[in-house]
Amino acid sequence: MHKNRMLSPLYTDMYQLTMGQAYFLEDRHTQPASFDYFFRKNPFRGGYVIFTGLHGLLEQIQGLRFGEADIDFLHQKGFHADYLEYLKSFSFRGNITGMREGEIVFPVAPILRVDGGLHEVQLIETLLLNVLNFQSLIATKASRIRFSAGKRKLSDFGLRRAQGLGGIQASRAAIIGGFDTTSNMLAAMEHDITPAGTMAHSFIESYSNELEAFRAYARIFPENCVLLVDTYNTLKSGIPNAIKVARELDKEGFWLKGIRLDSGDLAYLSKKARKMLDDHGLNNVQIVVSNQLDEHVIKSLLDQQAPIDVFGVGTSMVIGRPDGAIDGVFKLSYAGAAPRLKISENVQKTTLPGKKKVCRFLDRHGCFYADCIALDDEQQPKGMTHPYQKEKSLRLEGKEHEEIFITHMKEGEATGNGETNPFRLREFAAARLQKLPDEHKRFDFPHIYKVGISDRLMTLRDDMVQKLQDFI
Amino acid sequence: MHKNRMLSPLYTDMYQLTMGQAYFLEDRHTQPASFDYFFRKNPFRGGYVIFTGLHGLLEQIQGLRFGEADIDFLHQKGFHADYLEYLKSFSFRGNITGMREGEIVFPVAPILRVDGGLHEVQLIETLLLNVLNFQSLIATKASRIRFSAGKRKLSDFGLRRAQGLGGIQASRAAIIGGFDTTSNMLAAMEHDITPAGTMAHSFIESYSNELEAFRAYARIFPENCVLLVDTYNTLKSGIPNAIKVARELDKEGFWLKGIRLDSGDLAYLSKKARKMLDDHGLNNVQIVVSNQLDEHVIKSLLDQQAPIDVFGVGTSMVIGRPDGAIDGVFKLSYAGAAPRLKISENVQKTTLPGKKKVCRFLDRHGCFYADCIALDDEQQPKGMTHPYQKEKSLRLEGKEHEEIFITHMKEGEATGNGETNPFRLREFAAARLQKLPDEHKRFDFPHIYKVGISDRLMTLRDDMVQKLQDFI
Repeated sequence: MHKNRMLSPLYTDMYQLTMGQAYFLEDRHTQPASFDYFFRKNPFRGGYVIFTGLHGLLEQIQGLRFGEADIDFLHQKGFHADYLEYLKSFSFRGNITGMREGEIVFPVAPILRVDGGLHEVQLIETLLLNVLNFQSLIATKASRIRFSAGKRKLSDFGLRRAQGLGGIQASRAAIIGGFDTTSNMLAAMEHDITPAGTMAHSFIESYSNELEAFRAYARIFPENCVLLVDTYNTLKSGIPNAIKVARELDKEGFWLKGIRLDSGDLAYLSKKARKMLDDHGLNNVQIVVSNQLDEHVIKSLLDQQAPIDVFGVGTSMVIGRPDGAIDGVFKLSYAGAAPRLKISENVQKTTLPGKKKVCRFLDRHGCFYADCIALDDEQQPKGMTHPYQKEKSLRLEGKEHEEIFITHMKEGEATGNGETNPFRLREFAAARLQKLPDEHKRFDFPHIYKVGISDRLMTLRDDMVQKLQDFI
Repeated sequence: MHKNRMLSPLYTDMYQLTMGQAYFLEDRHTQPASFDYFFRKNPFRGGYVIFTGLHGLLEQIQGLRFGEADIDFLHQKGFHADYLEYLKSFSFRGNITGMREGEIVFPVAPILRVDGGLHEVQLIETLLLNVLNFQSLIATKASRIRFSAGKRKLSDFGLRRAQGLGGIQASRAAIIGGFDTTSNMLAAMEHDITPAGTMAHSFIESYSNELEAFRAYARIFPENCVLLVDTYNTLKSGIPNAIKVARELDKEGFWLKGIRLDSGDLAYLSKKARKMLDDHGLNNVQIVVSNQLDEHVIKSLLDQQAPIDVFGVGTSMVIGRPDGAIDGVFKLSYAGAAPRLKISENVQKTTLPGKKKVCRFLDRHGCFYADCIALDDEQQPKGMTHPYQKEKSLRLEGKEHEEIFITHMKEGEATGNGETNPFRLREFAAARLQKLPDEHKRFDFPHIYKVGISDRLMTLRDDMVQKLQDFI
């Protein structure tokens, strides 16, 4: 996120501020507290999520200040003068530890832990969820599309169907998930992404005929000419005209870079187009396709040997269809001097108490084997149990593990640990995804990655649940 | 959209600028052109869309200016110096006519028409689609939820699951569609919406027990106390503790405003809660519910006579689940001195040529009967035909109609016709929806509202298609 789009601390739910006022007026606002960010279910019926959005989040948290307009508005809404006075000089001074941006993450395991005063940690909840849930959704969707597309080029064409301003954030997340370019110029500028795009149907229609339009574009952009060939009739008009222009460019010492198909049966038309181009010696002219693509359509096209070089993907990627959201939550695990938990009739909604971290165990090939949620001061968990099914447990003695929690923010200052450039994050995510065994990456009923809780954490939780139930 | 969030003109697809450069360098940029904004399919398998987002769009278009950073970036990306010089003093000087914000709109019929120079009209395409597609989606979803909720109160709780910054725009659209309040404080401030919210589970957990937490909140907010009762056990702990606090408040001359249920079977728990509250004379204490609500869940709860006063709706509304996008497009209809169209093997993608408007015909009760797409200079279309099925036609002689196209922008200046306040837009949309017969509003297989083309428009289109096909 760009500096000039720093958000007001009012980019939050009202209850953060009513709770904040209560904490402040009862002098509990600086009591130590910890919250965990995690989600419960992988989107897209998939096997993983790519954690994305951390860099922009840290910028926003570090810059969080209440301005005059914010304070005035809270005053109008009846907030207490003493609390508003406190907010005027408020800044976040807590610590954030957790996974790196671009890490491959799984349900239930904490991704970030935020430690600080009860008030400040509570106050950033909505911002944190809004930023991370969405960008992680999009990077994950993009990585599925990358999985289908193999080494072919992927361009984000989504801005027109994006959910408003979310489109800027989506374009960055798309790169981290595996895309190469974006049509979104503002995202390209703000996040140093390569922009891409040439012409729409309206360009062709605005000329008295298609050939004239193609020639005009080739005159202006002889070195980067991709012609949209389906305005009138792809095979009878668009491709023959593109071939004419390709030959004319050739005489001038240039070559036609590509043609784009945006309608019709893309498998059929791309094969026909390839043959027509090749028959004229235009083997280097690329075929770009767009129109309602997603990971499934792309897989099907390539299964049919469609000779496509570039996929332009819009709506499905930029809104993370069909899920549209990750159910990420931010839950209190520690307050005052004690671990905390919420119990629920739905056992999966009972939270995990205490300050925690995640240890990622590796198999003998160095691939991801299991994530163990442990208490922060545990050295080497010796075993883990399924969080909700006690009969499922795993011994971990002698297994190697990675400490995947690092410090991202210390007393309100970003540490600068961790990458921020989207293309380098794309590399990191791809390398990590490489370590996730294939059965977790398939689209249909992926194998569930093992996430468990350490023996000590299980004991702590079960004791607390027991005491609460006795109390009720 | 707030003034301080004016967007760069780079909030667009790259191809708008490559086409723009071609138009400029070939001296075609000021040729007169018209584009139509319309969509092809109602979202949610529904029967209508609420047109939303116009006010913010007009503000953005009127303020569109290329800044130094924008020009520098375009220079880096190889755009032509002469074109960049032109962009430095560019502003949109075109005209925008069409439906009012809050209007009930239907597939195929143009919603807005933008007339101006080819370059300027093309340049705003992505912005226009990004703003209108999303906000219309959300307002439409919100109106479906309003339909189920009847007169009960609806609050937007969506920010944490919103698609990034899109959440601010969603909150305004939710009001226009029929919501009452929002948890989103920034949207509340920018769009003058009533904010709402009290406490999260973490607040309860941060105290050593639930009763203590409830009492603390009641001390700080005795006049606006809604207690979240499901942190530990709703029926055994949460509601009995809330009743205790209600009695304590009563002694101080206040009353408990409500309780909130956020898990479990909301029909069962709300009935039990109502009875427990009523048994203690707390008939005025409201029951607020939240947790994965949408129009279908709310309908089911009310069909079961669940005594719920307020629904807090998050994810499904704020991302417009399950569709997540409206397929709105912006298509050239006129350029130079001639109508234009795109033909397609898919007959529904053949566009409608010429400068057009929409006449809305009324039945004898004053309800919406049919929308006729006509040429701009037609006085009173005498008949209309289905755009793609010629055997379906309708005589319109003697029928009354409304001219629902008004002027929104004239030579780049917003006319100020049309409402901008979200609550007054909500009233307008509700009044218009009132005029849409019920069979178009039902959730399952709604009756399709009639949209047709005038005889003159049909003749124009068919002649143009014929000529193009002869040419190919």
